[in-house]
Amino acid sequence: MGKEEDAVYLCFDVGGTNIKAGLVDASGTILAKQSVVTQTDEQANSVLKQFLELQNVLCRESGITLEHIRAASIGVAGFVEMETGTVTRAVNLGWHDVPVAEKVSSMLGMPVFVINDANAAALGEMWQGAGKGLDDLLCLTIGTGVGGGVIANGRIVNGAYGLAGEIGHFRVKIKDGRLCNCGKTGCLETEASASAIAYYGERAARQYPRGRLAQRLKQAGTLTSKDVAEAAQKGDKAACEVIEHAAYYLGYALASIFTVTAPIRIVIGGGVAAAGSLLFTPLIHWFREFALPDIKDKNIIAPAVLGNDAGIIGLAKLAKMNLLSLSGIEEKRG
Amino acid sequence: MGKEEDAVYLCFDVGGTNIKAGLVDASGTILAKQSVVTQTDEQANSVLKQFLELQNVLCRESGITLEHIRAASIGVAGFVEMETGTVTRAVNLGWHDVPVAEKVSSMLGMPVFVINDANAAALGEMWQGAGKGLDDLLCLTIGTGVGGGVIANGRIVNGAYGLAGEIGHFRVKIKDGRLCNCGKTGCLETEASASAIAYYGERAARQYPRGRLAQRLKQAGTLTSKDVAEAAQKGDKAACEVIEHAAYYLGYALASIFTVTAPIRIVIGGGVAAAGSLLFTPLIHWFREFALPDIKDKNIIAPAVLGNDAGIIGLAKLAKMNLLSLSGIEEKRG
Repeated sequence: MGKEEDAVYLCFDVGGTNIKAGLVDASGTILAKQSVVTQTDEQANSVLKQFLELQNVLCRESGITLEHIRAASIGVAGFVEMETGTVTRAVNLGWHDVPVAEKVSSMLGMPVFVINDANAAALGEMWQGAGKGLDDLLCLTIGTGVGGGVIANGRIVNGAYGLAGEIGHFRVKIKDGRLCNCGKTGCLETEASASAIAYYGERAARQYPRGRLAQRLKQAGTLTSKDVAEAAQKGDKAACEVIEHAAYYLGYALASIFTVTAPIRIVIGGGVAAAGSLLFTPLIHWFREFALPDIKDKNIIAPAVLGNDAGIIGLAKLAKMNLLSLSGIEEKRG
Repeated sequence: MGKEEDAVYLCFDVGGTNIKAGLVDASGTILAKQSVVTQTDEQANSVLKQFLELQNVLCRESGITLEHIRAASIGVAGFVEMETGTVTRAVNLGWHDVPVAEKVSSMLGMPVFVINDANAAALGEMWQGAGKGLDDLLCLTIGTGVGGGVIANGRIVNGAYGLAGEIGHFRVKIKDGRLCNCGKTGCLETEASASAIAYYGERAARQYPRGRLAQRLKQAGTLTSKDVAEAAQKGDKAACEVIEHAAYYLGYALASIFTVTAPIRIVIGGGVAAAGSLLFTPLIHWFREFALPDIKDKNIIAPAVLGNDAGIIGLAKLAKMNLLSLSGIEEKRG
């Protein structure tokens, strides 16, 4: 088996669009990485084939041989039962109750661990990123949707039915909210995601027909959250209001979420976080406005630092922790 | 030291009004218990003396000798740094940065563990109560205030500055909320605690001067949440509306909190929970109305079962877990 510090982990971060794959060593360094377009089918068989090909490519590229790979670790955009490695529901992949760990383990002949992709990114930021060395974290990825990973006492909180960290569906509007993909109304995702910012951007463009956003909408036929951020950066009033709106609801949600697990840091990544201080300045303002007075002067909110590598690095951390646990160093509790 | 299963734990549940003390064995059975009025001073010295007296009384009563007591475990209504056993702030006790574990340990000559009282109650319900055998729990105590204990992966989540589980300050009204003791507005505590129910009860009494609540207010000069619950039980419309209001905001908060840690069960105790189905029926209705569709048909919310003993029993569980951990059975994580 070789020594712990020589271990290498084979990591697959499976999204609806791409699979990001990497070989990561026990110190958290990425030795090789690859990205391919996800080929999906209901039983995950095409993805399985892609895993095998990716393993070969990564080994060839890095010169790492199979006997150094101690485990495979898979992140999936969906609900995951971590004990069994089963993906119970992954809407964008069309998977329903797929025993991913079992399938991949029998194909690759090594231990396989499965986790939700936002949780993997959270572990990555805890191990090597903006939450380095911290045991209590909340990581938010604000893209098309809003994904969350909760870490308490140094461990991912998966919760009942794998639903922990579904912060996107934290309800910020008790009444009169917009309809969300989940079937409910008023979710954080409907007010502060990239799609929400695009939606409110288009609404603002129609309200201010002579503004920069309206111009852009006329040219492009549609607006993205990036268009809104760019217009706001140039001082467009309507665009600034849209970003402020997102920051207001994010700040509100995060302050209330703080009362539940009290993360020492809230790490925010994803496309919307790329807006930088344009988002973070009002967000921190509103967070402090809504938060317990005890943390008014603390720096809780921080941008993510690992970008797209957070998932791969976190997957390696998961494999490392789980192997350590399997090897019996970890406890049995009374 | 004797065998693990013969261990007895000395438990003190310290509130602003009473200290509840108990000797609890390793199976969770209370061997003896006592309650005395809390005598408090800034450095906790009078409480320390009370601990010593209570230890003597409990040993005498139960016939347990000192060598069987393996640890003392203390629950405090305040913020606790669990690693050091320091109470950073306990408003009702007047304590500020008191190193309780250190003081008690040098007095009693045994390991001492300190925890927030709501967290102790949560551990009790997990070990022997409504959350028996479950690793992911939220326990709410709804009395004068609203206290919470969060358990994830079988462990108490203490969080930054000991602030995890401060569910009472989860903000349910983003605007136009009432002022809370914490200095903010719109907290769950201002809408759904015993004091909130009494407040809205009195308001309703003034609105419906010929109703049962108004009658009661006229007799007693003031209303309690129990008065409101009793009037509601008898079908008083105004009182029913007040309970409905509390259930609505509780249901809303719990559904949003679910998206953070996804507790498999939410256990609700305290004086307000004593209203039984009068509270639980609308609460479960509103929880389902606001919750993710994935858990619409699950029974997440349940009443607490241990009553006033939850704290003492949970304190024994804490001592048992921590001793196990100290004895090196528990892990070091990489």
